[in-house]
Amino acid sequence: MEALLRQSRTMCPFLKKTSPATLRSLSNSANVQHASPGGGAISNLQITARRCPVMGKALSVQSGRNIASSALAGAFVGTRAYHKVPRAKLHTTAPKEAQAVDLPNLKREHAPFQPPTAQPGSNATAQHQHGVAPEPPQAAKFDYNGFYENELDKKHKDKSYRYFNNINRLAKEFPRAHLATPEEQVTVWCSNDYLGMGRNEHVLNKMHETLDKYGAGAGGTRNISGHNQHSVSLENTLAKLHAQEAALVFSSCYVANDATLATLGSKFPNCVILSDSMNHASMIQGIRHSGAKKIVFKHNDVADLEAKLASLPPDVPKIIAWESVYSMCGSIGPIEEICDLAEKYGAITFLDEVHAVGMYGPNGAGVAEHLDYETYASGRDPKGTIMERIDIITGTLGKAYGCVGGYIAGSAKMVDTVRSLAPGFIFTTSLPPATMAGAEAAIKYQMSYQGDRRLQQLHTRAVKESLNEMDIPVIPNPSHIIPVLVGNAEVAKKASDLLLEKHQIYVQAINYPTVPVGQERLRITPTPGHVKDYRDHLCQALESVWVELGIKRTSDWAREGGFIGVGVKDAEVVEPLWTDEQLGLADVKHALEAGQGALGVLESVLEREHLEVRQVAAAA
Amino acid sequence: MEALLRQSRTMCPFLKKTSPATLRSLSNSANVQHASPGGGAISNLQITARRCPVMGKALSVQSGRNIASSALAGAFVGTRAYHKVPRAKLHTTAPKEAQAVDLPNLKREHAPFQPPTAQPGSNATAQHQHGVAPEPPQAAKFDYNGFYENELDKKHKDKSYRYFNNINRLAKEFPRAHLATPEEQVTVWCSNDYLGMGRNEHVLNKMHETLDKYGAGAGGTRNISGHNQHSVSLENTLAKLHAQEAALVFSSCYVANDATLATLGSKFPNCVILSDSMNHASMIQGIRHSGAKKIVFKHNDVADLEAKLASLPPDVPKIIAWESVYSMCGSIGPIEEICDLAEKYGAITFLDEVHAVGMYGPNGAGVAEHLDYETYASGRDPKGTIMERIDIITGTLGKAYGCVGGYIAGSAKMVDTVRSLAPGFIFTTSLPPATMAGAEAAIKYQMSYQGDRRLQQLHTRAVKESLNEMDIPVIPNPSHIIPVLVGNAEVAKKASDLLLEKHQIYVQAINYPTVPVGQERLRITPTPGHVKDYRDHLCQALESVWVELGIKRTSDWAREGGFIGVGVKDAEVVEPLWTDEQLGLADVKHALEAGQGALGVLESVLEREHLEVRQVAAAA
Repeated sequence: MEALLRQSRTMCPFLKKTSPATLRSLSNSANVQHASPGGGAISNLQITARRCPVMGKALSVQSGRNIASSALAGAFVGTRAYHKVPRAKLHTTAPKEAQAVDLPNLKREHAPFQPPTAQPGSNATAQHQHGVAPEPPQAAKFDYNGFYENELDKKHKDKSYRYFNNINRLAKEFPRAHLATPEEQVTVWCSNDYLGMGRNEHVLNKMHETLDKYGAGAGGTRNISGHNQHSVSLENTLAKLHAQEAALVFSSCYVANDATLATLGSKFPNCVILSDSMNHASMIQGIRHSGAKKIVFKHNDVADLEAKLASLPPDVPKIIAWESVYSMCGSIGPIEEICDLAEKYGAITFLDEVHAVGMYGPNGAGVAEHLDYETYASGRDPKGTIMERIDIITGTLGKAYGCVGGYIAGSAKMVDTVRSLAPGFIFTTSLPPATMAGAEAAIKYQMSYQGDRRLQQLHTRAVKESLNEMDIPVIPNPSHIIPVLVGNAEVAKKASDLLLEKHQIYVQAINYPTVPVGQERLRITPTPGHVKDYRDHLCQALESVWVELGIKRTSDWAREGGFIGVGVKDAEVVEPLWTDEQLGLADVKHALEAGQGALGVLESVLEREHLEVRQVAAAA
Repeated sequence: MEALLRQSRTMCPFLKKTSPATLRSLSNSANVQHASPGGGAISNLQITARRCPVMGKALSVQSGRNIASSALAGAFVGTRAYHKVPRAKLHTTAPKEAQAVDLPNLKREHAPFQPPTAQPGSNATAQHQHGVAPEPPQAAKFDYNGFYENELDKKHKDKSYRYFNNINRLAKEFPRAHLATPEEQVTVWCSNDYLGMGRNEHVLNKMHETLDKYGAGAGGTRNISGHNQHSVSLENTLAKLHAQEAALVFSSCYVANDATLATLGSKFPNCVILSDSMNHASMIQGIRHSGAKKIVFKHNDVADLEAKLASLPPDVPKIIAWESVYSMCGSIGPIEEICDLAEKYGAITFLDEVHAVGMYGPNGAGVAEHLDYETYASGRDPKGTIMERIDIITGTLGKAYGCVGGYIAGSAKMVDTVRSLAPGFIFTTSLPPATMAGAEAAIKYQMSYQGDRRLQQLHTRAVKESLNEMDIPVIPNPSHIIPVLVGNAEVAKKASDLLLEKHQIYVQAINYPTVPVGQERLRITPTPGHVKDYRDHLCQALESVWVELGIKRTSDWAREGGFIGVGVKDAEVVEPLWTDEQLGLADVKHALEAGQGALGVLESVLEREHLEVRQVAAAA
């Protein structure tokens, strides 16, 4: 059977290109309008098979019933349309030179129906024999509802069906939210509003002011009345933030990634895009949409990337696309090494800093800036820094900056090219003035104040250290993400539900396809608002859930030899990207070397930070 | 020469699939890093040609200089990476089972370099002869900047380069805006904020309130903390508006169209998408991204559509995609006829109502609702109405509703399928709570009040009638769009610039690729705010510009036999979709039949409407 299937796959182009999941779906989805000879419904796969020049013949011999031929249907072309033109006068102004109609050679793709030898007693034949005008085709039609049902069934069965939680984050009680009713309050531990900028008073004031003065929406595309001082100013600020010549704002960074990769990848002749294996869906889609050749390199593996670059002719245009912070595991991309490789092999670099902007670097420009911390902190010329070497940086206004929207930054010519060619930029309504003004306020605030991102890092360290001490499995990483390994889709959802219902803590379960099967996790994202009481509560709640559901501990994973960094014996210690010095921990450490544990040092610093924050707030 | 090119195209797969524009760009873009034998820079086309198994050999014989072979580059795989691992510890947690790396068979696509017979005196050879370790490849690299420059040059040359105007629409002085400085004020005549909802006080109040309570951004994707009461409520309202079971909100309707068509078109097995020739870029992209077979039917031509449907096997899944109002010419799609054809041939219908929602129908649901005006006006059961028969309706929150965002509406199962499968929906940050709340307030306001869209229609009629009387060429159509034909890209831009600089009127020129070459136009969109003084000013300004630039009049086009509806002899009169009765014009007409012209009737009604509006405003 296996061998037969393998053989069929080699011979049959349909089987070859169709995924097992689709084949299953096709054979399960019944077409109720058309009964099979046995009386049951015919599957969509059987209908498809009828169009195969090989299988079709076999099926038509086997079955006495046949659907009306397309040749028959062809005889009725246009009749209905000629009967029904009363509203035709509404549909005027078809331009004389309508665009070329591209009727593809369907005959080849969809082998035309061979009118089967009509079986005695079949309807169509009877009608023809009696000279009655044949009816419009009553043939089996595709079962759209059956198809939808089947797709949804598959999702339910493999536990990847998503149930959305109704979470209403309360600006004045950050990081609290209410569920469907205002009474059911919970603490949010998985938002990407990492710094609480969505409730920052500078941002909100700017938005209120802009709303009143310039209204709710932009009113058009950038080209047609949707370009304004807010977009000009925001793009200037973004270019400056990233030490680049220019920037361009999109509806979202999903759109920015998709549109930019699709545009450049399709326009550069014979372009090859080298993509990290863990890249975000928006990049994967952009690469797909470009039609460019795609080469996936192993996650963060520069040797593998170099081998792949070296296999390509030097003059072929190449884009290396990767991320600075991978949001589901918290790993950080090798930015400098990739810039070196790009220069060596004539590639351009496309770095997604979506989860890093606002969070790293003395100005909050991201990991690339953070790698030259001193240069940027002292305001020195950025020439030759890693960030300045990157060709295309993409980022979001919707996570650490607390608003919505995305952007690219790079050379003036590259940005102008994307501006001029990308349909996803050109043909869509601009972001509202208030959104752009609010986002710019957030960026400027974070350029001038490091307190939020330092506190976020300190809270992250505190939670990671507590969980490690509690034997709860954190996937180690140098960033602000705390991925807690569960390893099973159903259990991860149960853990999330329990946290919400029993402990009033909201942490979404992350299942396939966002992470691979078997790596399901809870993804925890602390913020500056997650002070000690919240952190203690989280740890107690996780402990309770881990016990109640019997979820594996770090020591359990260790006994199995470790898994994706959890419980790995003699693993190198992962140092956080924000160093002790950068966080101001070093001094305190010295003062406390009398004997307190790491957690003690951290809590002392936090105590001090909170005092400062309160003073800043009081002074504001 | 012609014949040779044609022959080459038949034989060479590269020439066959590469557009003339790209070929031109490739042959113009110089690669400065690599000089040609003649001393000049080598074009990117020449570099590409080197990789051709046919041309490559000819070129390597012709030229003594050769770029380093990729085989040579291969010898250095990984060396750099191994030298540079100081930051490697940051890049941890590569999952053990990294996703399968798909290294395509590049050898076939990019014919490997045949190490050319080294010419005496070439660098590489000299190094080898002396046993020196060869340098990393210094071969010609792709000239990215040259490529960008070239693309931009082409845009400048064919006048399709876009210059954005800095337009800051003033909420309190609608439809006025200021340019870069607050002092330079203009009247906006081309915004898609058709009803001025972007400054509606109900919308703004709701947004202020929501901003304060729930903050600036959603803070996550719909699945991870970005789903809330605002999305639930907005989607319920949208489903109700369109008499459908469910709705789903996206970042924009560009994304909604792209994501929905791409998802369904790629998931339905062997799907065929039938697309109106004038469909919006978002649909064209969605269809392209689906990979489905695309068949373009002539604009609004149901006979052509039926012929194409009939040519397809009945059981093949088919999507018919079209628009209700085509925004650049104002034509209206044959909705009922297409629904009939879809039923007959087993297709589903995908109707873009982006420029119609808020504008047509007693509840503002769009043209589909307007076609059953009485049923919806009287609140009767919508079962069997045209709108209810449509499978997928898409719309925007960013035009008549004055905010930003887009959506689809349809059956619960279809919507759930798209929700579960579309990356463009799943992997992006939700719209901000305040945006969703504001948009819902706008929809509800327009469901309960017809005054804005009626006034918009009256102003449209008034402007169209004035321009017709002035012999200024309006492309006739039954909708709210006023496309004024210019017919030349440069002149259209000049007219737009003159209007702005000399007359303080902003109307963007619409050039290729938004409209076909030769059909360049000014696209005017009246709003309820464009009262008589503004309209008179617009007409005077257009007259002045038409004289100053010597732009063709309707009578000029008529002398040439007419063009895209302008100056066509004995053309059927295009009746507006909003009838005299629906606009309340019929009564006044009777009262005034004593002799006033059509314009007189209209102005009387407008006078009355404005009195009403003022009374409503005073009462509010």
